[in-house]
Amino acid sequence: MAGKASGYVVGVDLGGTKTLAAVVASNGEILCRVKAKTPVEQGPPGVLAAVATCVKDAIAESKVSRSSVIGVGIGVPGPLDPVTGVVKIAPNLGWKDVPVKALLEKDVKLDVFVENDVNAGTVAEHRLGAGAGVNDLIGIFVGTGIGGGLIFGGRLHHGFGKVAGEIGHMIIEVNGPRCGCGNRGCFEAMASRTAIVRDLANAVAKGRKTVLTKMAGNGDLRQIGSSALADAYRRGDKLAVKIIKRAARYCGIAVASLLNLLNPEMVVLGGGVVEALGADYVNRVAKAAAKRTFDVTLEGVRIVPARLGDDAVFLGAACLARERAAKD
Amino acid sequence: MAGKASGYVVGVDLGGTKTLAAVVASNGEILCRVKAKTPVEQGPPGVLAAVATCVKDAIAESKVSRSSVIGVGIGVPGPLDPVTGVVKIAPNLGWKDVPVKALLEKDVKLDVFVENDVNAGTVAEHRLGAGAGVNDLIGIFVGTGIGGGLIFGGRLHHGFGKVAGEIGHMIIEVNGPRCGCGNRGCFEAMASRTAIVRDLANAVAKGRKTVLTKMAGNGDLRQIGSSALADAYRRGDKLAVKIIKRAARYCGIAVASLLNLLNPEMVVLGGGVVEALGADYVNRVAKAAAKRTFDVTLEGVRIVPARLGDDAVFLGAACLARERAAKD
Repeated sequence: MAGKASGYVVGVDLGGTKTLAAVVASNGEILCRVKAKTPVEQGPPGVLAAVATCVKDAIAESKVSRSSVIGVGIGVPGPLDPVTGVVKIAPNLGWKDVPVKALLEKDVKLDVFVENDVNAGTVAEHRLGAGAGVNDLIGIFVGTGIGGGLIFGGRLHHGFGKVAGEIGHMIIEVNGPRCGCGNRGCFEAMASRTAIVRDLANAVAKGRKTVLTKMAGNGDLRQIGSSALADAYRRGDKLAVKIIKRAARYCGIAVASLLNLLNPEMVVLGGGVVEALGADYVNRVAKAAAKRTFDVTLEGVRIVPARLGDDAVFLGAACLARERAAKD
Repeated sequence: MAGKASGYVVGVDLGGTKTLAAVVASNGEILCRVKAKTPVEQGPPGVLAAVATCVKDAIAESKVSRSSVIGVGIGVPGPLDPVTGVVKIAPNLGWKDVPVKALLEKDVKLDVFVENDVNAGTVAEHRLGAGAGVNDLIGIFVGTGIGGGLIFGGRLHHGFGKVAGEIGHMIIEVNGPRCGCGNRGCFEAMASRTAIVRDLANAVAKGRKTVLTKMAGNGDLRQIGSSALADAYRRGDKLAVKIIKRAARYCGIAVASLLNLLNPEMVVLGGGVVEALGADYVNRVAKAAAKRTFDVTLEGVRIVPARLGDDAVFLGAACLARERAAKD
């Protein structure tokens, strides 16, 4: 039987549409990936049965021995308690108070460690990606929504109720547009993909033109994805450029607040919007942030793109499961 | 000679106008207080000589033996390095790169521990005030400016460059009024006493009436203090009520951002504005914050007034000096 430090871990990224599972070695190497549709309509038992199948398939495909697998780490989209492994709410899955750890352990017969997906992604960037060697790091993931993870002194900051990190719901414009959460002017309501396409659709409704109207298959600008946005931006579409630049500036303003407040060494920017827009977006964010941050605070700080893409969540979950196993 | 745990510590609050020093026992009891004008015009050597005199006077007046004093803790208004004891910048003192620890140790012949004043105040509330027993706590002090301190897992969060906690420079209104720091819409520019009196003066310039015009001796509303503001508020002065209620709402919005981001167990509100306006202000802040915070995040969280008033900074500095001495 493998020692706990050297064994394999299965990392899982449980998303609202698909589930990814991968067998991960102690050096972070990914031995194999398995992907499956998340059967959300089947509720927690069906979804977790599908997750268990993914885990077993990944182990089988990787050809490592069952006994060399020391645990499973799973990233779930929603606030949860990483100690009990109970997911409090997961809107994308329609879940409330689901004991993921207990249910999954019964099925896979391995120790299961549960973490919020964005926290897991941040941990992966910290341990294996852009932030290796950094002590204080903030991960910001800009996509349909905006999520974040906080690492202080090398460890995830969970907070009192274990739900810290809702970076997308820092308010950056008191009377700003309504957010999905009900508030006004949340960072997410100002700079997410959802905010960008809302602003595009509103401008088009007022008669503004954009190449995106043609690019949106059914004409619904709100369905436009990050890569189409990036395409229009690179082609110099005036409306897209204006709205995306503004969103990047808002992101920079949120980053400035985070720098002034928390003084991290590094801010890692990831998620669909950042990946699609690339270095130009990251540079705009960094510039807008630097302009609004104290000199003493900015000294030595790096604002960088994430490196791990879609692998981040399962890799981070795997890292955390391994660290937990080493402690036990 | 007294043991390190049981000895006395001198706590100092070095302010831009006055310096407070007090001999503090291990249980937090204050044996005596000494107060002196801060001779800012004399520069660092003169100011630190005056601080040393305060320390010696406090020891002499307290009648404890010199050998029972195990160290000095001093709170300084500005970003600094608590390890080296060098103050990077202190605008209120006109200082830049002043080695407070080294200079003061030479004079007082005791170990000196230097901490940012607002951090020290937060530590005092955590160890001896409103937050005793709490693990994750945020201190917010609303006065001329707005400062803050962050305690995670029972310890001050200093961050990468040791300058974390600039709560007043979280941006809550992208296009808001200009802040002293140069940015627009900082929390400080929206809710500090400076912001409140600016809004009052602007409204009066536009013809609005307030009892505060009479109360301001020389007619300069910008010189109005927190207690006069509170007085006008309690007397139902329409303009003062409107502007103060709005400032409290902005404070609640900043608190909501902090709760969503950091999920602390407690937020302690202190400083001149909070002390003058009392429970009514704290309740307004708490209500505005609760409205904008996720239910799972708000569970069990307390938003409370500070308890230690003007004693907080020197008490916190004393606590930190004692803890540092116990480690050595």
